[in-house]
Amino acid sequence: MTITVAVDAMGGDVGLKVTVPASIRFLQDTPHVHLILVGDEVAIQEELVRLRAPQERIRVQAASEVVGMDEAPQSALKNKKDSSMRVAINLVKEGQAQAAVSAGNTGALMATARFVLKTIPGIDRPAIAKLMPNMKGLSCVLDLGANVDSSPEQLLQFGIMGAELVSCVLGKTNPTVGLLNIGSEDIKGNETAKQAAELFKESELNFHGNVEGNDIYKGTVDVIVTDGFTGNVALKASEGLAKMIATFLREEFTRSWWTRLCALAAMPVLNRFRERADTRRYNGASLLGLRGIVVKSHGGADVTGFRFALAQAYEEASSNVIGNIADRVADQLQNLKRPESSSTE
Amino acid sequence: MTITVAVDAMGGDVGLKVTVPASIRFLQDTPHVHLILVGDEVAIQEELVRLRAPQERIRVQAASEVVGMDEAPQSALKNKKDSSMRVAINLVKEGQAQAAVSAGNTGALMATARFVLKTIPGIDRPAIAKLMPNMKGLSCVLDLGANVDSSPEQLLQFGIMGAELVSCVLGKTNPTVGLLNIGSEDIKGNETAKQAAELFKESELNFHGNVEGNDIYKGTVDVIVTDGFTGNVALKASEGLAKMIATFLREEFTRSWWTRLCALAAMPVLNRFRERADTRRYNGASLLGLRGIVVKSHGGADVTGFRFALAQAYEEASSNVIGNIADRVADQLQNLKRPESSSTE
Repeated sequence: MTITVAVDAMGGDVGLKVTVPASIRFLQDTPHVHLILVGDEVAIQEELVRLRAPQERIRVQAASEVVGMDEAPQSALKNKKDSSMRVAINLVKEGQAQAAVSAGNTGALMATARFVLKTIPGIDRPAIAKLMPNMKGLSCVLDLGANVDSSPEQLLQFGIMGAELVSCVLGKTNPTVGLLNIGSEDIKGNETAKQAAELFKESELNFHGNVEGNDIYKGTVDVIVTDGFTGNVALKASEGLAKMIATFLREEFTRSWWTRLCALAAMPVLNRFRERADTRRYNGASLLGLRGIVVKSHGGADVTGFRFALAQAYEEASSNVIGNIADRVADQLQNLKRPESSSTE
Repeated sequence: MTITVAVDAMGGDVGLKVTVPASIRFLQDTPHVHLILVGDEVAIQEELVRLRAPQERIRVQAASEVVGMDEAPQSALKNKKDSSMRVAINLVKEGQAQAAVSAGNTGALMATARFVLKTIPGIDRPAIAKLMPNMKGLSCVLDLGANVDSSPEQLLQFGIMGAELVSCVLGKTNPTVGLLNIGSEDIKGNETAKQAAELFKESELNFHGNVEGNDIYKGTVDVIVTDGFTGNVALKASEGLAKMIATFLREEFTRSWWTRLCALAAMPVLNRFRERADTRRYNGASLLGLRGIVVKSHGGADVTGFRFALAQAYEEASSNVIGNIADRVADQLQNLKRPESSSTE
């Protein structure tokens, strides 16, 4: 099957100068993919010529507007009907593309994607999911900020979606699912978390039980489910800490000519470490629960980072994540017995 | 003023073999402090003799029971009235000690401390607060898990307590306070966070506004306020990530004889980095809001870590954190105008 990815070429802190070169590199690496670059046609064409892009498997789709990085989602939805973001999502809706990727404003992207694509039947609200590195490999964490409050039923839907993402993209059968909480015991946590645990137990998911913040990086489970408020704070705190540690390490190695010499000696090792801990490799969060694939790149992503977001979209499209989620939701939600009152006491 | 610190000598994953040597070292470093080691009298005395502890400024107080690390808080409260943890807190209540330190079970410590010491008038519930490192220095983050749900009013109380802790222990006047949220705009976040922001604005705190997860490590503000669920997840996710990065770094430097040689060359720098990033230096979370100082050490803390928890307790006692919180709460809560209904819409 040919996969076509629609790229919001204007989105992100940098825009064209990142999205176009990343698209070209991705095209060169990935034999069968087709790309549609959406945005300012003249500027994109200029950039393609400048970079001597191949003529095949890539085309430009004009869009006259750009959603601002700080623009209110509702304003983007109402007033920017010809934005590069919206046109890219329209291409998915129309079946011209199997996935859209944008480094633009998260809130506007979510609002637009939800409005244009609608949610999968049985899914109340989409969630933002990300494959994050841990000691053993990768795990899917969701929701990372699409929803500030989530009901136990919504958390269960997140669990189902995350499990399908892991099954499809990482090829794991029957992945384990954990519910993020402040203690591994059943009695811990707030009411929503407790009720959600009951629902998870009765579902067909491979439910591991409650997990704690450190389990994200321990690799205790394949899927970690939480509400968007907690998930967003955990993700951003992690980003902040990683940056601080990198800064400390750099500061120590550049303190004097002597420490610079040490750094030089250790360079091959430091480079391998840097590569391994490179957050750009994990760029690309999925807006799960929509009737189409939409991947959000970090707004500040560089060429390497944006290329990984394109790859994430491609993987999801090739492995038919949406179809699998839809089937699983239909199955599991139909079969799901609601908890008897006695079992929640 | 002489400060006496009561030490739950039996608490923690290891117990005596950590708490007693840490206490002796702390005593040697800190000229005027007195310590009361609480627990199994014979075993503590043996350990003191074995370590050739000084005879002065240290005494043992017998307690016949130990609270298990997994024991339910209510069970500890009801059934272990002569536990080392409880007797240490009793010493604070009776004025024989100005602070208590325990590496025991957090839930039991909180329940016992609350029961024995009671909260400061105007404080509904205590919070767990920690001084955490950031790019610029230290900031106080609370609540880290004492409460799973917090009302806007309780979040404000946390803000007041955190600001006093920073003022007293770090000597900062009028510290800045931020409310942890998923976006810096006022409109973001759940209802509690929005209402809390209104209360903070009307308070006498130096309110910076909303902050995000990465601001914890950026050092954007001196005090970061959040509910215990979110705070606990953020703290534990950070601990997990720090461990993962350290593991990656170690793995890369021990991969072969060649990389070990690189590590040897870089050793002085790596050691400085390790020292700087050493989480043991930040061990010791404060149970704020009680009518007495109680510091919780990480259960797995080693001698160095536990010594830092003792130092934290000592700093709080010498700078009269409790008295200052009580005064500030009385002032601010009296002066606080409740938000008009119009302002919260």
